[in-house]
Amino acid sequence: MRAWAMSASNDVLCATRSGQGMSQINRDQFETALLDMIGHTIAGPTEVVACGMVGSREGWVEAPYDTVPCPTMPAGFAEPKTTDPRLQVFVIPGIRQDSPPDVMRGEETQITGFLARNPNWDGVICLPGTHTKWVHISANEVVSFQTFMTGELFAALSQGTVLRHAVAQDGWDDAAFHDGLDQSLSRPERLASRLFTLRADRLLNNADPVAARAHLSGLLIGAELAGAKPYWLGQQIAVIGEGKLAKLYVDALATQAAPAVQVNATEITLAGLTVAHNRLRG
Amino acid sequence: MRAWAMSASNDVLCATRSGQGMSQINRDQFETALLDMIGHTIAGPTEVVACGMVGSREGWVEAPYDTVPCPTMPAGFAEPKTTDPRLQVFVIPGIRQDSPPDVMRGEETQITGFLARNPNWDGVICLPGTHTKWVHISANEVVSFQTFMTGELFAALSQGTVLRHAVAQDGWDDAAFHDGLDQSLSRPERLASRLFTLRADRLLNNADPVAARAHLSGLLIGAELAGAKPYWLGQQIAVIGEGKLAKLYVDALATQAAPAVQVNATEITLAGLTVAHNRLRG
Repeated sequence: MRAWAMSASNDVLCATRSGQGMSQINRDQFETALLDMIGHTIAGPTEVVACGMVGSREGWVEAPYDTVPCPTMPAGFAEPKTTDPRLQVFVIPGIRQDSPPDVMRGEETQITGFLARNPNWDGVICLPGTHTKWVHISANEVVSFQTFMTGELFAALSQGTVLRHAVAQDGWDDAAFHDGLDQSLSRPERLASRLFTLRADRLLNNADPVAARAHLSGLLIGAELAGAKPYWLGQQIAVIGEGKLAKLYVDALATQAAPAVQVNATEITLAGLTVAHNRLRG
Repeated sequence: MRAWAMSASNDVLCATRSGQGMSQINRDQFETALLDMIGHTIAGPTEVVACGMVGSREGWVEAPYDTVPCPTMPAGFAEPKTTDPRLQVFVIPGIRQDSPPDVMRGEETQITGFLARNPNWDGVICLPGTHTKWVHISANEVVSFQTFMTGELFAALSQGTVLRHAVAQDGWDDAAFHDGLDQSLSRPERLASRLFTLRADRLLNNADPVAARAHLSGLLIGAELAGAKPYWLGQQIAVIGEGKLAKLYVDALATQAAPAVQVNATEITLAGLTVAHNRLRG
């Protein structure tokens, strides 16, 4: 969980984070977890605007989904009941797609922030992470989107399979990343066999686990780019994410002659939350 | 760990299994684990022929690899030291491939058994499991092979990711399997996004977890068949495995106009171990 205290003129007064996120706590613990973080900074009536999994079925309050095509910032915030009379909490709804079925929570706020900074921008936004989203934006609406489990696949493979013996838990090797990327982009169907090659290469040739880690990342991001090609091909592209991961996607897209701008996730999230807060004022 | 007591005329006298396999015990515990299983059935000098991970670096004794192209049953069994004077143990070597790096242990024995039953058979053998092998056989030799982590991917995805909320731990739906199979065979590069579709379909439409399980299996086996196409296309094919899983592969190949014979893994393993034992006699 992350929180920012903002002034009336939208300056950040204070930023904080805790490990008490959605996956760690139950519905009736959200208010306490929030107050543990921000209680000492508030001194009177406080409006809290929240986005992300806090609005899921297992979150603080289930916020509805808007359905594509729809504005990037869905209307109708959900309001969980609070015990502390100082708090008034608004949870931004997510966005769903019926066919193929897909969902997002949190990314709609980042996209809204990006469009606030880049009015009338049309193109495709990539939001890399545990569940990477590719989102088609046109006329200030989300037209369609597609989620790839790339980040979670990386974690599950590198920690929960025989590859844990072959793949380091950190470190990086750019050449190995690009080698994996090229392999998956040219022959994405070979992914499952290339994974085992990492294991065998460790066993037979004592291959470097740091290079293997970057290679695995390249294989998975390459497979994703191959699958997401109908999204990014010939489009204006923005990648919104934390610096290192977002740069990998920008670099990978560059190898496909698909230039992308890199956008800082935190700034753009704050911009989106600010749009939502301004809407409370009408 | 599985063991069979065999008569001099190669009839099975007794079959047994235990949970004390390679991943559960250390090197110095193999003899005890074996005697726990078979000690009561032996009454004098006993030759034990073993294959599989028992010959790995973390096994009872490291048996060398032969390198492709090579005979299906590598020469030079490894012999771990035993304390019990009745036991004489022989571990069958594995097979390695230098490029791309790949390894097998255990499958060489099954392949040897299959060729003992089908002399001079040429074609491609598929051995589905945690790490599925595709093996090109010609002139009684292993020419090349390729391993796909399909079984381990299925386990890691269905138990170690967000898909655990969407995918049942057992049950089956044939139509959902074939739907996943078709999707991956036609567009294998979309795998990572189709995985998340299972999650979203559960969330939005309360999709059936049993159907999702079969669909996931179809997606992964379809992606494997797409990647292994250079192996099976236009070849004589045999699938060696436990009944249910082997039949899935045979059915999947049939949809690609690639008829395959299904072979019982246990029978063929025993046939291979028998070939190895006969070789001890010269």
